Amino acid sequence: MSQLEKLQQLVSDNELDIAYISDPMTISYLTGFYSDPVERVLALIIFPDNEPFLFAPALEVESIKDTGWKFPVYGYLDHEAPFAMIADQIKKRNSNPIVWGIEHDQLTVSRANALKDQFNDANLSYNLTPAIQNFRLIKSDDEINLLNEAGKWADFAFKVGFEAVKIGKTEQQVAAELEYALKQNGISQMSFDTLIQAGTHAAEPHGATSSKQISNNEMVLFDLGTIFRGYISDASRTIAVGTLNDKQKDIYNVTLEAQLTAQSFAKPGVTAAELDKIARDIITKAGYGEYFIHRLGHGMGMGEHEFPSIMEGNDLILQPGMCFSIEPGIYIPEVAGVRIEDCVHITDTGCEAFTHTSKELTYLN
Amino acid sequence: MSQLEKLQQLVSDNELDIAYISDPMTISYLTGFYSDPVERVLALIIFPDNEPFLFAPALEVESIKDTGWKFPVYGYLDHEAPFAMIADQIKKRNSNPIVWGIEHDQLTVSRANALKDQFNDANLSYNLTPAIQNFRLIKSDDEINLLNEAGKWADFAFKVGFEAVKIGKTEQQVAAELEYALKQNGISQMSFDTLIQAGTHAAEPHGATSSKQISNNEMVLFDLGTIFRGYISDASRTIAVGTLNDKQKDIYNVTLEAQLTAQSFAKPGVTAAELDKIARDIITKAGYGEYFIHRLGHGMGMGEHEFPSIMEGNDLILQPGMCFSIEPGIYIPEVAGVRIEDCVHITDTGCEAFTHTSKELTYLN
Repeated sequence: MSQLEKLQQLVSDNELDIAYISDPMTISYLTGFYSDPVERVLALIIFPDNEPFLFAPALEVESIKDTGWKFPVYGYLDHEAPFAMIADQIKKRNSNPIVWGIEHDQLTVSRANALKDQFNDANLSYNLTPAIQNFRLIKSDDEINLLNEAGKWADFAFKVGFEAVKIGKTEQQVAAELEYALKQNGISQMSFDTLIQAGTHAAEPHGATSSKQISNNEMVLFDLGTIFRGYISDASRTIAVGTLNDKQKDIYNVTLEAQLTAQSFAKPGVTAAELDKIARDIITKAGYGEYFIHRLGHGMGMGEHEFPSIMEGNDLILQPGMCFSIEPGIYIPEVAGVRIEDCVHITDTGCEAFTHTSKELTYLN
Repeated sequence: MSQLEKLQQLVSDNELDIAYISDPMTISYLTGFYSDPVERVLALIIFPDNEPFLFAPALEVESIKDTGWKFPVYGYLDHEAPFAMIADQIKKRNSNPIVWGIEHDQLTVSRANALKDQFNDANLSYNLTPAIQNFRLIKSDDEINLLNEAGKWADFAFKVGFEAVKIGKTEQQVAAELEYALKQNGISQMSFDTLIQAGTHAAEPHGATSSKQISNNEMVLFDLGTIFRGYISDASRTIAVGTLNDKQKDIYNVTLEAQLTAQSFAKPGVTAAELDKIARDIITKAGYGEYFIHRLGHGMGMGEHEFPSIMEGNDLILQPGMCFSIEPGIYIPEVAGVRIEDCVHITDTGCEAFTHTSKELTYLN
């Protein structure tokens, strides 16, 4: 049964009259067609006992047909009224659907109101987001193959990036070189803006790659990922330029121990919260707990922030096929920042990483 | 009066008890701090008669303070409950706000429900989106200066990109070279994925840069933009490789005439719909109307899809300071695709473009 058929079954089982899907990644997951429509309207409409249809900007209709979508697709022009047109198509199939399934985490208040304007009796309180997250939570073998491919390109990017590091070069120049090499090899999209931070800049975990020059005797943090056929990679490494002082080395070694310990502990039966705690306890015992100010990891797959969330309070039990990052970090303002990250998938007995670049402290120059 | 003060005035004038702002670009516009929080919570809370505050992921708090934000900012950790924490801070200032202003085009149904869970009496029906769009519709001189700077980098990118075009090179390789040159010059973010499409590929107006090789005697379409201090550029050019046949030349010339005519017609007092029609009529009269399947243009500034929308049905009258694209295109499947685009700002007497790369048909090789 395809994912689309599974969702149609869910619509039927829950006695919904209709499901309105508009998250572009969910649409891609269910149909094989991906597009970010920005402010235009892209929707997949599913019925318990009718064929589904896609509604899209006219610009996209040919691309949708090219993907092999075998059900109807309707396009609209920019000056047309998309919700009235969607309603017309729906009413041909069900004159007055009452119980709607919508993605509460995706649909805006405006668009919920636009649906209610077309269907005055619509009840939009059934939230499809958790069910869809659950579908996407366990990756198939095909998905894991794509995540492995995306991971190989992240490893390639680290290799090029580390070779590009030179004292006096800027963070942005290093990022430019590794992205250029990827694009020359046909990998044209990063999964997020490549982050390269040198020295104390790395102590700002949500900073951006800047024109800061790389200096001697400091660490450089890389956090990067690629997209491969709709699936992403995401990994971080921190390398040394010149020689490090004891404090820098200690921060690195504690982060590494936390990362390796958590990665070897990740297996079916462990909860997300337990995994977070394993890593956090190591950092806390070493005296750096206050500097590890984010969760241990996030789910990933088509997007960089899927489920499961690896954090305190999440008692979800890990199962084979779940994919997430393990990325402890220590960020001491004005001193240094270190993050070490692999994304992994849970196997029957443990976990396997999608990236394999060495995590031993690498000294350059 | 700052934009933040203007919004506070609007809250007061409309007798709202509170405004909840969560569009990252709006927050940037009002506070100077930009961050895309992905699935985390970032909110700006405004009261009619109290200081505003920001609520953000703990990761972002230092960056917010660094921007000079002079009001309170509260951070939350990943395992904490953000909406309960926001509610606590609100209740210290107003124990039971009833009339809320929210951005209906931004807030998801889930987050609206989360607010209602905290404030059972909350009325969320006041939509702030139109007012905020209106604030952002007319750009200041400072904003226009930034848009001009962003435009200069788009012109630079065209220059590098045209020089990179060679028969046998792929679209992706050309994109890699122009983005590399930008990054080497400190421009690290494109405003959208650079689009380079060769030959018949350009007839798919929403396709992506691919591994297709550039051939002789075809056109290559470039659509690209950069981000400069939070403001974007967006421009398209179509160039010729080798020699073109009469059909290709005709498509180019008609598109160019439509673009130049619309750009010379754009001035205060003209409506958005009239401007669209001026360009569309030229293309229609030439027999290509069915192949121009999108609006003439979109507003731009901090984002690539702001207001005004230049399309049929939009009777908005253009005024000085409005910024938008003028981008007619003709896309004939299996034959060729041409788009020519400048973004402009309306002046007292006409309009001025942010990009100045020649629009005359340029032959390479």
